[in-house]
Amino acid sequence: MAKERAKIVDCTIRDGGLVNNWDFTEEFVRNLYDKLNQAGVDYMEIGYKNSPKLIEANGAGPWRFCEDDFLKEIIPEKKQTKISALVDVGRVEEDDILPRAESVVDLIRVACYLKDVEKGIALAEVFHERGYETSLNIMAVSNAMPHELAEGLAKVNVSNVDIVYIVDSFGSLFARDILYLIDVFKEHAPNKKLGIHTHNNLQMAFANTLLGKENGVTYLDASLMGMGRAAGNCPTELLVGTLKNSQYNIEPVLTLLEEEMIPMREKVEWGYTIPYAIAGILNEHPRSAMALRASDDKDKYAQFYRGFMTVEKH
Amino acid sequence: MAKERAKIVDCTIRDGGLVNNWDFTEEFVRNLYDKLNQAGVDYMEIGYKNSPKLIEANGAGPWRFCEDDFLKEIIPEKKQTKISALVDVGRVEEDDILPRAESVVDLIRVACYLKDVEKGIALAEVFHERGYETSLNIMAVSNAMPHELAEGLAKVNVSNVDIVYIVDSFGSLFARDILYLIDVFKEHAPNKKLGIHTHNNLQMAFANTLLGKENGVTYLDASLMGMGRAAGNCPTELLVGTLKNSQYNIEPVLTLLEEEMIPMREKVEWGYTIPYAIAGILNEHPRSAMALRASDDKDKYAQFYRGFMTVEKH
Repeated sequence: MAKERAKIVDCTIRDGGLVNNWDFTEEFVRNLYDKLNQAGVDYMEIGYKNSPKLIEANGAGPWRFCEDDFLKEIIPEKKQTKISALVDVGRVEEDDILPRAESVVDLIRVACYLKDVEKGIALAEVFHERGYETSLNIMAVSNAMPHELAEGLAKVNVSNVDIVYIVDSFGSLFARDILYLIDVFKEHAPNKKLGIHTHNNLQMAFANTLLGKENGVTYLDASLMGMGRAAGNCPTELLVGTLKNSQYNIEPVLTLLEEEMIPMREKVEWGYTIPYAIAGILNEHPRSAMALRASDDKDKYAQFYRGFMTVEKH
Repeated sequence: MAKERAKIVDCTIRDGGLVNNWDFTEEFVRNLYDKLNQAGVDYMEIGYKNSPKLIEANGAGPWRFCEDDFLKEIIPEKKQTKISALVDVGRVEEDDILPRAESVVDLIRVACYLKDVEKGIALAEVFHERGYETSLNIMAVSNAMPHELAEGLAKVNVSNVDIVYIVDSFGSLFARDILYLIDVFKEHAPNKKLGIHTHNNLQMAFANTLLGKENGVTYLDASLMGMGRAAGNCPTELLVGTLKNSQYNIEPVLTLLEEEMIPMREKVEWGYTIPYAIAGILNEHPRSAMALRASDDKDKYAQFYRGFMTVEKH
């Protein structure tokens, strides 16, 4: 296989939607699509394609469900940047997914935990049959037992899935962990392209993404100013600004940041804060840190930390 | 030589002073010293020890000059955490430096550009004679020509200086740059201990510091919440929270962050912002980005970037 060049997958709307309940205007998304095209970004993830029949909408914006007719209104004409959408195992109706020729979407990514890899593969294969590029995004790999991870990857390897992702759900991985996982993924899923999705709890998101790229990972997730759940993601602007690829152009990204993301950041919070750092240090799901940040105790760091330390672990 | 264990040098007051003109109260510094001791942090850099005769005070707090009598009032009793102070070549009067036995300070660090290495060594040797631990902090290494760096390091190698620092002044270094510099420093100054001081323009400060540690660098600069000039430094809390050393305890650091650093951050700005990222991407001194952040155009990123692109470079 010829050496693939790395690609940027901007997840601002999808992962950022976890922060603002997908409250992005249609103008925002159209502007994002235009500017990401100008910047040469390879994919724009336009949201989740979960089914409103299977989860409560809770006032979420339309990017949580991404109905095809709606997407066609938003993007009547496709340009260079491909469109991606994410589905969660157990939250998507296969019948909602049109054949690719009738959809705006190019890539469907299936997120699952390791225990659900077979379900994830089955879903991805349905989408593959309908003509989509597909990926399987295995979450929370920092908690996986090595033999279970090896078994899961072996199943991915013989499937039709195009890409398998290393997802640092808890933002707790260091360089040597990334290198270890890349080795494991390459060993047990040698037929697959690799992707990486990082979180910034330990300020390692960009560094780990670059490390992935230098070691053969070709799908690099990012978002504008790192907008994403809790500590957020690898910043798109740093990838566009530093990857040595003449197709990338940072200026349209800078325009997006000043026009769209600064006002956004004034309304909702994401990114490195101490509670997320604590969650990353402890390899914990960020949910309790998110609850803390939403409370009056948002800066009671020592008490928050002691809460983890004093729980019986046996 | 036995393998040295890594040490944390907290630079909050010294490098953070560049942000708030050293406007830290005496209570702040005493509290910092107490808590850093409880946390097991190895060094606290209490400020600059430049001479008020050689630079204008411009209303700066006392931590810009660190007169010895004053320091003794602040820290009447030394504990485990050692005290460090920084001097700049050309801004310090040798005669102002007491013998170590009469001073609170343990480590004097001399900052210089590569062209002034001889002056830096001469100063450090004076302090060595007076009993201090010493380091030479060579700034802006990302701009050094390899042969000049090799020559400078060879001079350091035969001096009495204890530690030589890799200083990523512009926050523009990536992992492979750090590895390259460590190789060069080890090759040309094999007798010296190594230190690293990073900036966070590209969100690489912590990652690069860890990479240094894994490759034999033993003096790790950091500051609380990364407080330091422009994009700031490697965060002390992440080193204390993740280095595998039983002497470190993050809880007193968390208390400092919530009690002291959150109110501080509401008054003055530091840390990752897009103009600092642009300066890092372009390997530029942060001064123009700092000027932008202090102006009404602080979020005019695209225009700021174009300003660099349209300057004639020849």
